[in-house]
Parts: sequence; structure tokens; C-alpha cells
Amino acid sequence: MPQVFLDRDLIGRPGGRRDITTPALVLDLDVLEANLDAMTAWATSQDIALRPHAKTHKCAAIGRLQMERGALGLCCAKLAEAEALNAAGLRRFLLTSPVVGARKVTRLMTLAAQCEDLMVVVDDAGNVDDLAAAAKAAGHDLALLIDVDVGLRRTGVTSTEAALALAERIAAAPRLKLHGLQGYAGGVQHITDFEARRRASHESLAILAAVRAALEAADHPCPIMTGGGTGTHAIDPAAGVLNELQVGSYIVSDVEYDAVDLTGDASRRFRNALCVYARVVSACHEGIATIDAGSKSLAMDGPAPRVAFGAPEGTRYSCSGDEFGELALPRGHNEPLRPGDLVALVVPHCDPTINCFDWYHCVRGDTLVDAWPIEARGAAA
Amino acid sequence: MPQVFLDRDLIGRPGGRRDITTPALVLDLDVLEANLDAMTAWATSQDIALRPHAKTHKCAAIGRLQMERGALGLCCAKLAEAEALNAAGLRRFLLTSPVVGARKVTRLMTLAAQCEDLMVVVDDAGNVDDLAAAAKAAGHDLALLIDVDVGLRRTGVTSTEAALALAERIAAAPRLKLHGLQGYAGGVQHITDFEARRRASHESLAILAAVRAALEAADHPCPIMTGGGTGTHAIDPAAGVLNELQVGSYIVSDVEYDAVDLTGDASRRFRNALCVYARVVSACHEGIATIDAGSKSLAMDGPAPRVAFGAPEGTRYSCSGDEFGELALPRGHNEPLRPGDLVALVVPHCDPTINCFDWYHCVRGDTLVDAWPIEARGAAA
Repeated sequence: MPQVFLDRDLIGRPGGRRDITTPALVLDLDVLEANLDAMTAWATSQDIALRPHAKTHKCAAIGRLQMERGALGLCCAKLAEAEALNAAGLRRFLLTSPVVGARKVTRLMTLAAQCEDLMVVVDDAGNVDDLAAAAKAAGHDLALLIDVDVGLRRTGVTSTEAALALAERIAAAPRLKLHGLQGYAGGVQHITDFEARRRASHESLAILAAVRAALEAADHPCPIMTGGGTGTHAIDPAAGVLNELQVGSYIVSDVEYDAVDLTGDASRRFRNALCVYARVVSACHEGIATIDAGSKSLAMDGPAPRVAFGAPEGTRYSCSGDEFGELALPRGHNEPLRPGDLVALVVPHCDPTINCFDWYHCVRGDTLVDAWPIEARGAAA
Repeated sequence: MPQVFLDRDLIGRPGGRRDITTPALVLDLDVLEANLDAMTAWATSQDIALRPHAKTHKCAAIGRLQMERGALGLCCAKLAEAEALNAAGLRRFLLTSPVVGARKVTRLMTLAAQCEDLMVVVDDAGNVDDLAAAAKAAGHDLALLIDVDVGLRRTGVTSTEAALALAERIAAAPRLKLHGLQGYAGGVQHITDFEARRRASHESLAILAAVRAALEAADHPCPIMTGGGTGTHAIDPAAGVLNELQVGSYIVSDVEYDAVDLTGDASRRFRNALCVYARVVSACHEGIATIDAGSKSLAMDGPAPRVAFGAPEGTRYSCSGDEFGELALPRGHNEPLRPGDLVALVVPHCDPTINCFDWYHCVRGDTLVDAWPIEARGAAA
């Protein structure tokens, strides 16, 4: 259960957005919906399916919006994410990382029994054996994808031979069912230049296609070919390898993705839907103000957050501790910020910033309209 | 309420520590208690009091251990931290940052009515006026400290004149009571060289002493002089300015503080009590292994975490995403890590790492002995 929501009384109050308790994670539902619709329209036009990644939003309400728009299911990076979203009523998951160890495998089988569709990736023979034993003991089938390393060097088999060996091992286990392949080119997603990103992504997908060809030649069909992300969503369909995309960040975008030309024509398919609202808590120095959002409220592993409103153009944020940030006003600006002033910051890197919060403050225009719990916040295990 | 604790069944089971569900935040209670005792002994020997900072641990159980050892109260960086710890039974708090804005001031007065001792710092006249009005309306006194900027440029008045003006304003408000001064030299705490740190800290404290002298000359006594941190705990008493220390990280230490010679003689007064346990989830490449702890489980704003056990000496961790880390084994090592292998990592920067988790897994030796909720995790508002 997330912590108490502090602003229940503001919901529906005209202009209540400006009274939100800070720091807060503020989600613009109009922009969110437009982003969801834009991705759905793109995928439909390309005849490719979506299996959006819930590691980004960690929220059942957003997951439901994705499912209502035709998503096949949700991806989760961790078992606990899927458990949290399942507890909130979602039923179709792909676990995009291996689930390893006896205790987690036990939880996996419990979750599988509660889901309409649960798949998990594998890249290790011992892990396949553990899953085979667990599925046999549970008396129901378990759907697997073989994870293929297409260049990230993080998870996934590193050769066609290894993939074939895993496929044979899966085929030999009565309760395991091979449904296809996953190949995620994580390192490619943020290549800023479209053409360079296209080349890199298609090279990665060629690896995946070769593995599929070898498996299908050995009578291991791969109906599901899953991978990709927001950074390559406009690039991957043309390669003809994937039939579904694991897009995540498109729902809200962030400063990091704003630097990436996603579509090749510098159009902006997705707009910023997510800000951290903060307030000035101290303003004793000319030209700077201290706000109540530091590294416990803004993931600082990427670029700095960008001011959306509340401070003049050219204001720069820098983290000044776990709880505080410094706003440096542009030179020559002579309307100082004062304690209590509200500032909205576009989130720098959406996934880990969202993971700092228990709730989305949902707004439309100037009105706080809802509060959505981030059920899988912190669900890392 | 924190999320469900996954390892309840392991508590008390001999050797159960090795089965802990990962990633987990594992607190060695023997080392924690030794650290708490060492700081208490030091403070007693120096005739200085402790008001430990709860922003580090965010945990009522640890706060109680500090209170049992004679702490005056707990510091909190944010109002919501104090509210969460108050809800868990703690009653004495100093809010070390200004509490700004009508809605937070209302919460502050509610909290004050529930506490035996609540103090808050101020650095702004308008904020003092707001607090004066709220205390008058509530019909009870509110204790204030003037926050003095001793070099951090984050919060605090920047001149003796400003401090005097605030003191006069406080004195003019019937329900506000000035109890003293706070000066926190945050930028000094991690200066690695002891002598350089000593000089910098004493320069900061000289600023604070000058403000006190001016206030006391104007008949504004300052019985409380609070500041300092783990980095200067061995340095500040000798300056004779502070009468209490806001130490935080000493309870568990971290890789960042391990690089700081805290005592000037390279002795280690505080030992590492806190690790993130992780497991290998993939090991398809020679010489590297992927573990299930990334930037959502280890704050990566400082140095890399250090392997405590489970991987050979010389193994290097690097973050490979929000959910994963890469362990690079030392060259020539030829016992590969395998999926499921357990690795313990000393936390790199304790405060924000703790803020990633809902529970401490508490161990003594090889036994998981308890689970402590991190009540104020995420309490940033």
C-alpha cells in the first residue's frame, strides 16, 4: 500500500493544481492519453502489436489504459512488479528478465495460476530445469521466451547454438512451452541521431532474426518476437523481425527522450506528460532559490530536469542534496523567486523518478482530478 | 504502509540469511548497535548531545534505539518524515528545513500538538509571520531555531543583520519561541582530509558563533546550537560552538564515508552495517554477471557499491539499468558466478539507497532476526 495521499481535499477544486503538496509527481492525463493514442495509432498503421513495459509507470491505472487500447499484455522487469499489478487486477504479463532461484520460482508459479497469460524469459539451462520441475509439480503449463542478447550484454543467450540448446531443453519438458524470442537492444534506444539508431537497431534485430531462423529450421516455431522500446518504435517495424514492441517511456516522455529524434523528421509524437512539482523553501541568496525536490524526488542519473513553469526561461536546476535542489536564475533576471513559489520540472528520466513516488497527482488543465497509486513502486524483488 | 515483506518465513531460521529475496536491504544489527554505542560514547566523552538525523534511516525502530541511548530527539529534513515517525510513536523532532506554505504550516501545527517537542528552523520573515499566525490560531507555542547559512548556500540567513531581524520578529510574536541556531556545513562533511575538513568546519562554526554573539548581545539567548554531521562529529566539539550534533550516516556508514578519515588517525569508529543483497540473474558472458540490483535499488549518485561477499576481491559493480547491475570479475578469475548466486554489496551512499526500500532485513550473524519497516521511505513532502 502506498503512503497516505496528502491532497485528497484538492481533487476537483478549480485551480487546485497550484496548491498541490510538494514535491509531487504530477501527471497530465490529457497528454498521457494523447501519447497512448499516438502509439496505438502508429502500431496499428504498422501492423505491429504493443506489449508496453510497466517498469516505467508501475501503475495499474495506466496499465489498464494500455490494455483498453489493445495491448497484448504488460511487460514487467521484476516478478514483484507483476505481483503488485496482478493484485490490482491486471492479468497478462511478460517477465522480461529471468526469474531465478527456488523462492522466486515458487512465487512465479503462484502468479501464473492467477493470470490469464504469464510468460517469462530464460537464458540458462539450469533455470529452465528449475522451471520445468516447478511447472510439473504445479501441474500446469508455463510459457517461455528465449531471451537473446542482441548487443546489450546484460541478459540473453549469446549464440544460436545456445538458443537451440535451450529450445531443445524446453521441448523436452512436458509442462514448458516455447512461445518465441525476446531481444532488447537497450543500448540503442537513446542514440540521438535517427539514422545511427536505425542502423544499430536493425543490426540487433538481424541477430534475433538469425536465431529465429535456426530455431524454426529445427522445428521450434517462434510465434512471439518481442523487443524494442520507445527509442526504436518508429524504426523496428520496418525490419520485419519483431511482431510486438515493449515500449515504455512514450507514455510520459522525459528530458532524456526529448533529446532523441524519435521519428526521423524531428516531429514530436509524444509530449511531456509528467512533472515534479516543487516549491521554493529558501531564497536567501540573490539569483538562486532552494526548492524541496532533490535526488529523493528526481532521478539524477541522466540530464537535469527542465523547468516547465514557475521559473524564468534559462533557469537551471542542480541537485543540492537528497532533499533539495538549487534553481539558478538566468543572469539579469530581477524578479526573485520567493519561499512558497511553485515550480514544475519536467522529469529528467521517467522510470526511476516515478519509482520515488507512491502516487500520481492526476491533472487536467488546472484541476487535480484524481490520484493514482503507483502499486509497483519499489517492487524490485 | 510499506509493501508486503516477502521473507517473513525466513525469520529465525538458521542460515536463513542466504535465502533472502533479492534485492534486499540487509542491516547487521550487531554492527548497527556498535556504531550507535560508539557515537554515544564519543558524544558523552565530549560533553555534547546528539540529535541524530532520521533522514538517513527513516525508521522508527532505529530512531528508538537512538532515543534509548540519550538522543535529545530526531532531526527530520521533511515534515512528512516527522509525521511518519510520529505515527510510529516517536515524539521529539527538529525539522531542519523551513516548512513553507499554508497547507504545510497547518500540518505542522497538527504535528506539534501530537509531539512532546517539535522545533522548526526559519530563515525568512514571511515564513515567520505565517508560523506566528498559525501558532496564535492554534493557541499553542511553537519553538523555532534560526537557520544560519554557514557556507552551504542552500538554506539559512546569510548575515548577522538578517538573523537579528528574524529574532526580533520572532520575539514580537507571542506564540513563537526562539530556542537557538542551526548551522549545517553540508559541503564540509565529505572532505576526505581530516585537517582540511577541520579547518573548513571550524570556519563555518565561527560564522555561527558570531551570529550567536550578536543575538545574545541583543537579548536573544540561543540555548540550542545545533549542526554538524558524521563527517565532522570528531571535529566540531572542540570548536565549542555547537552543543548538539545532527549525525546521520554513522549508524551504518557507506562506501562514500569509508573514504573519509573521520577521526584523524585513520581508525574506523563506524563499520559498514548495511548491504544490498542481490543475486545473479544472468551469466552468459565470460567474466561478467548480471545481478538484480540497479539504480532502483542502489543510489548511484556517489561511488560504486563495494562487494562485501559473494564475488571475488577486485570485482567491480556498474549499473546496467534501473533494475540491473553488472559485476565485472577480476581478470584471471576462473570460477564464474552462476544464476542464483548471492552477492552482498556495501551501500554506496546510504541515505538515498535506504529510500529505495520499504524494509530492512535485520540480521545477526547468519540469521535473519527481524524486519523493520522504513516508515518514512518516500516521505518527501
